[in-house]
Amino acid sequence: MPILPNPSDPALSRRLTGIDERGQPYETAVIEERPLTIYLNRQEIVTAMTIGDYPEYLALGFLLNQGMLTASDTVTAIDFDAELEVVVVRTQAPTNVEDKLEKKTRTSGCAVGTVFGDMMAGLDGLELAQTPVHTSTFYQLSYQINHTPSLYMETGAIHGTALCQGTEVLAYMEDVGRHNAVDKIAGWMHQNGVSAEDKVLYTTGRLTSEMVIKTALMGIPTLISRSGFTAWGVDIARQVGLTLIGRMRGRKFTCLSGEHRLVFDQNLDEVADEKRAMRRKGADA
Amino acid sequence: MPILPNPSDPALSRRLTGIDERGQPYETAVIEERPLTIYLNRQEIVTAMTIGDYPEYLALGFLLNQGMLTASDTVTAIDFDAELEVVVVRTQAPTNVEDKLEKKTRTSGCAVGTVFGDMMAGLDGLELAQTPVHTSTFYQLSYQINHTPSLYMETGAIHGTALCQGTEVLAYMEDVGRHNAVDKIAGWMHQNGVSAEDKVLYTTGRLTSEMVIKTALMGIPTLISRSGFTAWGVDIARQVGLTLIGRMRGRKFTCLSGEHRLVFDQNLDEVADEKRAMRRKGADA
Repeated sequence: MPILPNPSDPALSRRLTGIDERGQPYETAVIEERPLTIYLNRQEIVTAMTIGDYPEYLALGFLLNQGMLTASDTVTAIDFDAELEVVVVRTQAPTNVEDKLEKKTRTSGCAVGTVFGDMMAGLDGLELAQTPVHTSTFYQLSYQINHTPSLYMETGAIHGTALCQGTEVLAYMEDVGRHNAVDKIAGWMHQNGVSAEDKVLYTTGRLTSEMVIKTALMGIPTLISRSGFTAWGVDIARQVGLTLIGRMRGRKFTCLSGEHRLVFDQNLDEVADEKRAMRRKGADA
Repeated sequence: MPILPNPSDPALSRRLTGIDERGQPYETAVIEERPLTIYLNRQEIVTAMTIGDYPEYLALGFLLNQGMLTASDTVTAIDFDAELEVVVVRTQAPTNVEDKLEKKTRTSGCAVGTVFGDMMAGLDGLELAQTPVHTSTFYQLSYQINHTPSLYMETGAIHGTALCQGTEVLAYMEDVGRHNAVDKIAGWMHQNGVSAEDKVLYTTGRLTSEMVIKTALMGIPTLISRSGFTAWGVDIARQVGLTLIGRMRGRKFTCLSGEHRLVFDQNLDEVADEKRAMRRKGADA
């Protein structure tokens, strides 16, 4: 059983009453969204909007994916205070993050970059594993992810990301921000010493530059999405040799980078149609 | 004819070649994503990731929606440099934005807050128009938006936002970030002196706290989406008396705030099913 969100956790969703298109009372489940302020030692780094589960993994993964924590830093503690909505990641020695923060960029919401300079710098000289990947595994993973318990099926309006190895889903995370879900995966991998070079990352979100950069920085050589691409996302994937697959629905997918790694071992006539009700359509569908 | 993106503008999308699920060569259009750094006078404010159209409206609307520009500021010029990917909004007198920037928050991507303190402060004492809105207009607007020329139909992976009055679409903007599309609308409204109190905003994106706050700060009393809600988004809408409608597809919708304003004048049996190929499914579908 992979690590998962808990759809029955009362802290993650709320039942609200409104009306439907006929003016009739209508009760529905809605996902929670709350601020979480991440500190690195004494430095306030960011306030993320999150559903609220796995705050320690989110904080750790965010700092790793932003290049604010590196392999040379030793994490000594991660302290979460639910009342203050604060999580503090502590390291043995001070980090150089104060310097980096001098050139701050902030964002206006979705698909908007954070400290892009740092993130792009981390890609210099990066070499992702170039081992073959079998397309049959993609279909098996899609099926499994569609049948994994999820908050999305309860509330909609969130994204999911799965870390996979072969045909196995090792970790599945959800959040209002698709980047948060990826960061939680990164934090979980780091805390559990999980290697990246033989993994596949699956996301319901779009393949933007930031999503591709995060995946590459995590060392994962394959990124799959139900959703579409941006041109810059494809550019970066090609630059670092990441296999990038988008618009994967039912039998179909499009691969715009790293296609030489694909082994087409799936008989497409044997791929079952997705059950409509089971689709993880992405948070905005 | 409303103001629109230009789907045939070669700067906004690119044709890329990859392979499909059968390993066959496959050519497809992909949306561009590029950085745009916004300055307010001499102060660098943010680097947004955007498709690149209407940079002046994006910059102006962003600053307005963040509360960095207020009614007391007079905008004297908006200068865009395509080569530097920089846009500078200039005001007659210095603004107080430097003070505000002391408490910076940054974001980790989608659905993540920026300078939330400032934005929330702008909601204090806000009173949105409480005039009735007719549900029949929502269906007519949905039909029109589904039939408006769009980049989404070419490339996917973007969000759309429409400013509407009665059954008319006045402005339709698209972007990789759903907040960017809303900011472009805000900039267009400001530059053209368009009032807000009788307008309806339609978005393909989710109804998160930030989306609701922006709409309320713009003074628009009705926000409609194909997508779902977050609980905090609903909380804020209820606080400011904004009519919030989500999950609007075909005949169906859910209203979780401001339902007293709705006039149910639509015969639902006469609502045509959406044509599958014409749906604006939201960027992640």
